[in-house]
Amino acid sequence: MRTHLITGGAGFIGANLAQSLLNAGDRVVIFDNLSRGSRRNIEALGSGAELVVVDIAQHVSVDAAFEKVVASSGIDEVWHLAANSDIPAGVSDPNIDLRDTFLTTFNVLLAMKRHGIGTLHFASTSAVYGLQVSGAFSELDATLPISNYGAMKLASEAQIRAALESSLERVNVFRFPNVVGLPATHGVILDFVRKLQLNEGTLDVLGNGTQRKPYMHVSELVEAILFVREHSKESYSLYNMGPEDEGVLVSAIAEEVRNQFCPNASIAFGKEDFGWVGDVPRFSYSTAKLAKLGWRPQYSSMNAIQRAVAEVVGQEAAR
Amino acid sequence: MRTHLITGGAGFIGANLAQSLLNAGDRVVIFDNLSRGSRRNIEALGSGAELVVVDIAQHVSVDAAFEKVVASSGIDEVWHLAANSDIPAGVSDPNIDLRDTFLTTFNVLLAMKRHGIGTLHFASTSAVYGLQVSGAFSELDATLPISNYGAMKLASEAQIRAALESSLERVNVFRFPNVVGLPATHGVILDFVRKLQLNEGTLDVLGNGTQRKPYMHVSELVEAILFVREHSKESYSLYNMGPEDEGVLVSAIAEEVRNQFCPNASIAFGKEDFGWVGDVPRFSYSTAKLAKLGWRPQYSSMNAIQRAVAEVVGQEAAR
Repeated sequence: MRTHLITGGAGFIGANLAQSLLNAGDRVVIFDNLSRGSRRNIEALGSGAELVVVDIAQHVSVDAAFEKVVASSGIDEVWHLAANSDIPAGVSDPNIDLRDTFLTTFNVLLAMKRHGIGTLHFASTSAVYGLQVSGAFSELDATLPISNYGAMKLASEAQIRAALESSLERVNVFRFPNVVGLPATHGVILDFVRKLQLNEGTLDVLGNGTQRKPYMHVSELVEAILFVREHSKESYSLYNMGPEDEGVLVSAIAEEVRNQFCPNASIAFGKEDFGWVGDVPRFSYSTAKLAKLGWRPQYSSMNAIQRAVAEVVGQEAAR
Repeated sequence: MRTHLITGGAGFIGANLAQSLLNAGDRVVIFDNLSRGSRRNIEALGSGAELVVVDIAQHVSVDAAFEKVVASSGIDEVWHLAANSDIPAGVSDPNIDLRDTFLTTFNVLLAMKRHGIGTLHFASTSAVYGLQVSGAFSELDATLPISNYGAMKLASEAQIRAALESSLERVNVFRFPNVVGLPATHGVILDFVRKLQLNEGTLDVLGNGTQRKPYMHVSELVEAILFVREHSKESYSLYNMGPEDEGVLVSAIAEEVRNQFCPNASIAFGKEDFGWVGDVPRFSYSTAKLAKLGWRPQYSSMNAIQRAVAEVVGQEAAR
């Protein structure tokens, strides 16, 4: 039985990962400041998951929290998922991504070095790539992020790569696409559902609906990252995670939400080509490396959206 | 007459840049904490250069310093050169590069946004690339730094790219190779000269001497960055700066210093393939983009080393 520390484990992806690790018979400790994550997500995991409420952007707090867990059960692997997930907020105030995305990584690395913990998994993002020039981004391509969110994720990757040289033993970095599913805490589907809850007549969409992005369902994402953890032999293992298509249009997501939740509503699009400053309107990236390792998705982007819309509509109806 | 702010302008490259900008008839304001830079370097510039002693890793200080300069003369362009330049120090204590390389950039960007300054030039490094897999790195290749120095420079690039999307108007990012010349404040030539001053009989070299790196003389480096400033039409302009060869061996640098400074000394090499943890033992990168823009160096790496050894020997003899 191994002990996994998941930072941000009370959030959307973290809670799903925790469940899978628990199902496999391992022990899970979660560090979360409960800013977006919730106790309810942890309670749903049942026994075996331990929550420590701590803000890992604060160096002193995270170091004390590590010390306590190391003393009681030890930590075999760290999954660093804690980060700001509100991209527009980070564009208007760079301090948000500095604190919640960059400094959390810095502090986790310092604590791991101090306690001699060698294995780190990191949730990065397709947003590190920035604007598409041509073709699909591979892991060998340059990264030119256009949001502070993408910048601080890339900055975190850079710190981690350097730490592998001096203190870590094994690193997996996963560049996530847009991820959907339950428990929904943020994202385009939840936004649309909540807008329709406030105004049943019209769904107002940011941007002109032509933004096209790849989506992955959280169940497949967790399956894929656990596959990489098991099968990759590289000490620094960097993978794009995603579907094998070029994504779905925002307009198609809006229609899916409308059709499932509020069939009579009309949809009003904005004029801009992008949803907000720092939004990457269109991109696709290559998942050939992941396929070569042996994992391929069952879902298309549209499959993932359809399932997640049904799930989120159910979640919001139950509130 | 334009006003240039140079952070780290009392240091090696900054002082050379300041001199060139002054020679062109512009005004120069320098922010420096004088940790490696010195008042003597500023005095050598003559009138026209103003020094403000400030630690730009401290948000409050840098903001006040910007305010004062903006109120008196305005700032047309910012050259952000301030950074930790001691790579091994940053490997053993990550806080050094966090503070002096990463947070200085963060604070400069915040101040530029606040004061509506649109043009930024940034001194980055070939160390962002990390270990060579095959061929020469181009600006389109992935970056996997193996030192905190390289990581925090890449993290700075990422922040700057994102800031261009929301507040900056024009950015030049220069990835420097190893740079040599006067006033020497650090680096392999000065290390070797000082070792020979302490021990005339033997020059002890870190690593086995087979590390091979490209070198550029500071006079050509400044010429090249001013060329890019004048000729590049991209809003985000990223250039590898360097010679058009694969570099020189550390053993050749050691021999050059020995021959010029202490001809009877013997040279003792270490056993490791690298000089220190985080050292990139061998790399070359492509300067084809710079050549395409129209600038090509006159010096080879070895020419740059030969000239700089003579200069540094002179500097140290005069101390």
